[in-house]
Amino acid sequence: MFTTSDRLGGMPGQKVALRGWLAARQDRGRLVFVTLRDGQGQVQLVASKQQLGEEELIALRHAPLESALRVWGTVGSVPGGDTVELQLERVEILPSADGFPIGRKEHGPEFLMEQRHLWLRSPRQAAIMRVRSSLEQACCSFLHSEGFFRFDAPLMTPTACEGTTELFELDYFGLPAYLSQSAQLYSEAGIAALEKVYSFGPCFRAEKSNTRRHLTEFWGVEPEMAWVEAEENMRFQERFIRAILAAVAEERADDLRLLEQDPAKLMLPAGGFEVLLYGEALRRLAGKGRVLSWGKDLSVEDEEALSADFDRPFFIYKYPVQCRAFYIEPDARQPELALSSDCLMHGGFGEIITGGQRAADADFLLARIREHGLDETVFSWYLDLRRYGGVPHSGFGMGIERMLRWICGLHHIRETIPFARTPQRCRP
Amino acid sequence: MFTTSDRLGGMPGQKVALRGWLAARQDRGRLVFVTLRDGQGQVQLVASKQQLGEEELIALRHAPLESALRVWGTVGSVPGGDTVELQLERVEILPSADGFPIGRKEHGPEFLMEQRHLWLRSPRQAAIMRVRSSLEQACCSFLHSEGFFRFDAPLMTPTACEGTTELFELDYFGLPAYLSQSAQLYSEAGIAALEKVYSFGPCFRAEKSNTRRHLTEFWGVEPEMAWVEAEENMRFQERFIRAILAAVAEERADDLRLLEQDPAKLMLPAGGFEVLLYGEALRRLAGKGRVLSWGKDLSVEDEEALSADFDRPFFIYKYPVQCRAFYIEPDARQPELALSSDCLMHGGFGEIITGGQRAADADFLLARIREHGLDETVFSWYLDLRRYGGVPHSGFGMGIERMLRWICGLHHIRETIPFARTPQRCRP
Repeated sequence: MFTTSDRLGGMPGQKVALRGWLAARQDRGRLVFVTLRDGQGQVQLVASKQQLGEEELIALRHAPLESALRVWGTVGSVPGGDTVELQLERVEILPSADGFPIGRKEHGPEFLMEQRHLWLRSPRQAAIMRVRSSLEQACCSFLHSEGFFRFDAPLMTPTACEGTTELFELDYFGLPAYLSQSAQLYSEAGIAALEKVYSFGPCFRAEKSNTRRHLTEFWGVEPEMAWVEAEENMRFQERFIRAILAAVAEERADDLRLLEQDPAKLMLPAGGFEVLLYGEALRRLAGKGRVLSWGKDLSVEDEEALSADFDRPFFIYKYPVQCRAFYIEPDARQPELALSSDCLMHGGFGEIITGGQRAADADFLLARIREHGLDETVFSWYLDLRRYGGVPHSGFGMGIERMLRWICGLHHIRETIPFARTPQRCRP
Repeated sequence: MFTTSDRLGGMPGQKVALRGWLAARQDRGRLVFVTLRDGQGQVQLVASKQQLGEEELIALRHAPLESALRVWGTVGSVPGGDTVELQLERVEILPSADGFPIGRKEHGPEFLMEQRHLWLRSPRQAAIMRVRSSLEQACCSFLHSEGFFRFDAPLMTPTACEGTTELFELDYFGLPAYLSQSAQLYSEAGIAALEKVYSFGPCFRAEKSNTRRHLTEFWGVEPEMAWVEAEENMRFQERFIRAILAAVAEERADDLRLLEQDPAKLMLPAGGFEVLLYGEALRRLAGKGRVLSWGKDLSVEDEEALSADFDRPFFIYKYPVQCRAFYIEPDARQPELALSSDCLMHGGFGEIITGGQRAADADFLLARIREHGLDETVFSWYLDLRRYGGVPHSGFGMGIERMLRWICGLHHIRETIPFARTPQRCRP
């Protein structure tokens, strides 16, 4: 029966078996120190001729890096530390080739991305993937516990949510189809059946810009709620963010520390997330020397500048309608404003969620679809949702990779997903 | 504060508020009976002039079907039944158009699929979607509790898992790319970092055959495990199936009954799932007059005939290598057999899971890739997984829609997913 590296702390003096990969080795004459990596993390192994035997010690000394190992030994304390190590009594080494391409020296990002299938094994990359898994599980578990039903929108669609310029086109048995940018429109059909639904799936954006914030294929979680208006939507987003961050902090504290992130940063200060109206956001930006004329959308740099002043996430609310998608409900008293919000992470990070109340009136929507130059025939089903039993409803979308980038404190988004897709890269 | 229809059973005599949609109405002179549908199910409302007032009774009598309603009243028992109804005291009716396209009369499947955005509201379709949500949540929760990490494989890929003939091709900034049929190959890169991983995402198959068992876009759960060999893989599949079915039975008993399925069918009989060797399967089929020459794969009808004899799921194991994909590990003692299994649901249903041990040797794999006429350059990263630290490993894949079809007792797979994609249909 094999155990895993994360459990050894509670097993001092016990005989255990582990299996994993030879991540690093230091040969100190009579002793050989090996770092064993398994799915949960890593642990130091100590091998001596007395305990392991000469033949196995030599084999261990010469095994290529990244060889798979099965090892047996006794859990001991590292002298002078609070971590544990394993005193080896037996080792089995599986065959492996010499010359693992990723070494201790610095590699450029292009090389690492080309070797992504191997780079994933590095402690930092594996830790990011574990945090990613916990974040995803936390999103789904929280929404399930809140009475949401998962509702999988189609990925191959005839409908262009916000125009076709940023869509990947594919050949659907001789007809054009597009990879979906968002599940939202379909989720709006779900709420009249299930009231509260969410999608959790890939989204595609064929934007040929290389930035450290964008992927062409990313994962989104998009809740949609019947009977919920814009302000309740923001309150729910606050509960959602607090819940998923707390769950990740609890489950992956060690990995966060490995990534040099204090798990405490995920426990947000008490008190509601502030709601900044768009006009107020412009005034604050002007105070920082960033003058924006009314009606312009905030740039990434504007969002970063604003969010530097906050110690918890906050909302920017009631954007001018021209900044938002065609389906947003206008403010009844100021129809030039949209009941739509962005949630920005604090500390200079910027946008993490876009959400809003959806337009309830079929005629209004149809006019907007025409204004935006969209094909109204492909949206007739979407208008039906208003014609028959329409209700006030709202929703939002959060990109998993973007939130993971904040949680893990990563400079570049390419490290947040197993195999990143960018305009220059669709492999391995 | 609004409650939901599923909670009323525990609230006799209480005053409550509900919101939902007007699903059906019977006018009996002094009384109007309305079926209100909400996200959890439905409940009968009883309206009288005395309690509701004349004006609101008339409005309720004339509201179009599928109007959205907010209602207030007292929970009472239905005379002679064990269900509850709501005696209305107040109602608010939101505007809705007359002529909801789906009525009580029979509609053909093409009409219903064209109106899928509205058909989803029917009690059966909404119940199927709730069961789907619970099934999906059960898969992820079980794997999470077993120490698996979720690992999202890319959907846009250069690699054709099993040849390009059944792949959707897309334009990736001027280069061809393909929508992924399976996450498996990528998950195999994940296990050397995380040991046990699973993918949960859409899979695409451009097969131009119209059957009641296939979709061009479906959702799959694909666990992959380092250090696990073919027989342990089957034992794990058994635990997985038992766990997810038990979770669905507990969470969605009412919906299963609405679908005329006894929730008890999901509690499988005790005792292990039988493992039938391929040769034995051929002998049993011959006994049923279905003669298959050695080396041929079983047809859907063969699988249905075999599975009719079982009272719980079972495996067919050690198929001839020519029946299986290129990456399967051969049996060391009989290399003409693959360490690969199908899991079939009992009672005449047929295949639900395909799994197996993956080939461990890079040279063997390369030879197989060449035999299958695949492009070896796109698989070089996959061979690296064997060159560096390869370990015995196994995994399996289950189609969510196929399992849901078994759970809900559905004839056609198109009802198992919010918006089905078939060769003839990529809309709404």
